[in-house]
Amino acid sequence: MRPIRLAVDVTSGDLGMRVLLEGVLLAKKIYPNHFVTHLCGDSAAILREMKNLGFDKDLSREFAVEHCPQQIDKNETPSRVWKTKRLAPAVRCISLQKEGAVDASLSAGDTRIIMGAALFLLGRMENVARPALAAFLPTITRRPTLLLDVGANLECRMEHLVAFGHMGFEYYQRFFGVDNPRVALLNIGHEPAKGTRTIKSAGESLAASCKGYCGFVEGGDLLTGEVDVVVCDGFAGNILLKTCEKFYTLAESLLGESGKFADTVKKKMAILNPENYGGVPMLGIRGVVFKAHGSSSSLAFAHALAASVTAAYRGLIGTGPKRMAPKQ
Amino acid sequence: MRPIRLAVDVTSGDLGMRVLLEGVLLAKKIYPNHFVTHLCGDSAAILREMKNLGFDKDLSREFAVEHCPQQIDKNETPSRVWKTKRLAPAVRCISLQKEGAVDASLSAGDTRIIMGAALFLLGRMENVARPALAAFLPTITRRPTLLLDVGANLECRMEHLVAFGHMGFEYYQRFFGVDNPRVALLNIGHEPAKGTRTIKSAGESLAASCKGYCGFVEGGDLLTGEVDVVVCDGFAGNILLKTCEKFYTLAESLLGESGKFADTVKKKMAILNPENYGGVPMLGIRGVVFKAHGSSSSLAFAHALAASVTAAYRGLIGTGPKRMAPKQ
Repeated sequence: MRPIRLAVDVTSGDLGMRVLLEGVLLAKKIYPNHFVTHLCGDSAAILREMKNLGFDKDLSREFAVEHCPQQIDKNETPSRVWKTKRLAPAVRCISLQKEGAVDASLSAGDTRIIMGAALFLLGRMENVARPALAAFLPTITRRPTLLLDVGANLECRMEHLVAFGHMGFEYYQRFFGVDNPRVALLNIGHEPAKGTRTIKSAGESLAASCKGYCGFVEGGDLLTGEVDVVVCDGFAGNILLKTCEKFYTLAESLLGESGKFADTVKKKMAILNPENYGGVPMLGIRGVVFKAHGSSSSLAFAHALAASVTAAYRGLIGTGPKRMAPKQ
Repeated sequence: MRPIRLAVDVTSGDLGMRVLLEGVLLAKKIYPNHFVTHLCGDSAAILREMKNLGFDKDLSREFAVEHCPQQIDKNETPSRVWKTKRLAPAVRCISLQKEGAVDASLSAGDTRIIMGAALFLLGRMENVARPALAAFLPTITRRPTLLLDVGANLECRMEHLVAFGHMGFEYYQRFFGVDNPRVALLNIGHEPAKGTRTIKSAGESLAASCKGYCGFVEGGDLLTGEVDVVVCDGFAGNILLKTCEKFYTLAESLLGESGKFADTVKKKMAILNPENYGGVPMLGIRGVVFKAHGSSSSLAFAHALAASVTAAYRGLIGTGPKRMAPKQ
């Protein structure tokens, strides 16, 4: 089996190119299988930063560098950038997928830019009205809960939530190899009469169409691991994900950051450390497209990279209806 | 100064009357000042449960019992229950306020029932389109962040969010005696171009009308304590609050629940324990109306009770425009 080829946008993080490149080098160390990285960005800057990071081997023997001369202005409409800025790194990653030059892509750029490019260059899977970002959250049972959407669709109609339920069900099924993941809708209470009209009708529709559907869950149930997949609109999901990610920092600040006690705490709480997650897949796209946090550290970016490669290896997502059987 | 008189609905918790009555007895022990509790519920059941709890003194010397013969059916429209069920405990508490027999009320019942009764029996304050539930969240800086709305208004228009900003600003100002609390809108990013149209226009309006307004914050910023008041719709707020409340349990499950190490952890993480909060005020109502969690434990209910009495003492909320100066 040939190694997975991954396009990485090394320019879009909040912390600058060096942090992301450090993440790329780190991923090479922590990820067990061989993979080829296509670094998308200004090639001169990439060479300079790699040298600064002490990488003095011949770059072209280990990486492909895809020179991207364009940058994205702040006043461009993000969802249309794919049309006007084909040679901006976030878009170039996805064009490389379209051309068949890579198997997957990763960017820490604006979700709307990545989504626009993915939708229009790669297309959506059958029966998917809108792709969604899906993230794993740690739970008390240790088996994570898949939360979607976490930011691709701020306002959702009933049919979008229903489609997210189905997408989440399939992804979880393949990821963990379980037959019947439990799918729930996020709501303000468990009772069928609670919630907005949109959520209530999405619940009725999922009950009739998704065999894993088991009703409403509240915010707290996300962390108990009672259900496997939790569906919500991208606004609530994004807020929730970012709050949960900060919980580790809060606990650290309360329990102390150094010393033997703090070390034990850190070890025991490792599953809460957001740096150990780092990247989320865009479900519903015909291709493996991952989004990393804008504020990704090197370690977080390395884990996002590893997750993208794993997803591509396993054929977890975006392989289209005909190639949807797991390849493990 | 005469003691605060508080009406308590002892029937609406998920865990039954005994747990709530235990909470009432506990509050008497932990709360330093004298206050008088009006217990609203079936009087025979109250007497029986109090006896079971070992309270064998003459009940009427310590408490007022308000017999409430009515119960609320599941198929009644919650927001109209105040009209049809005046003698149901959740409604009776608020009628007692209306009659001037008590200064504040507390119920663990359905938010929509309490809100309906509060709105129609007590009325709303000037310039308040919709009252909101406001909850304090623990932060890294130790000074809590006030989050509103946490469940009274699931879908909000721009003007509702703007009004929540003003209500939160005033409440925080009085609660902590600070001049200029920092108010922010919860969003999926910090940049002005991010978010829904409703949030963007609420941001513009708050920038022009609220002197504490400082822009958008993301989910994670809630826990860092960078801002004092965070405004969102009641759906996102409810989900967030309940998720944050579960952090403590998650941390406990990771770090161990017994032993010396676990004891140190518990002590250091006490501010995360939701039982130490327990009740949230309904801002924008002409009266001190508190809502406790449906799933309140005795300790959580005791803290909710203490918070209601404190709010009534300090004249923090619901005193109407003319009596709005702090009374501390």
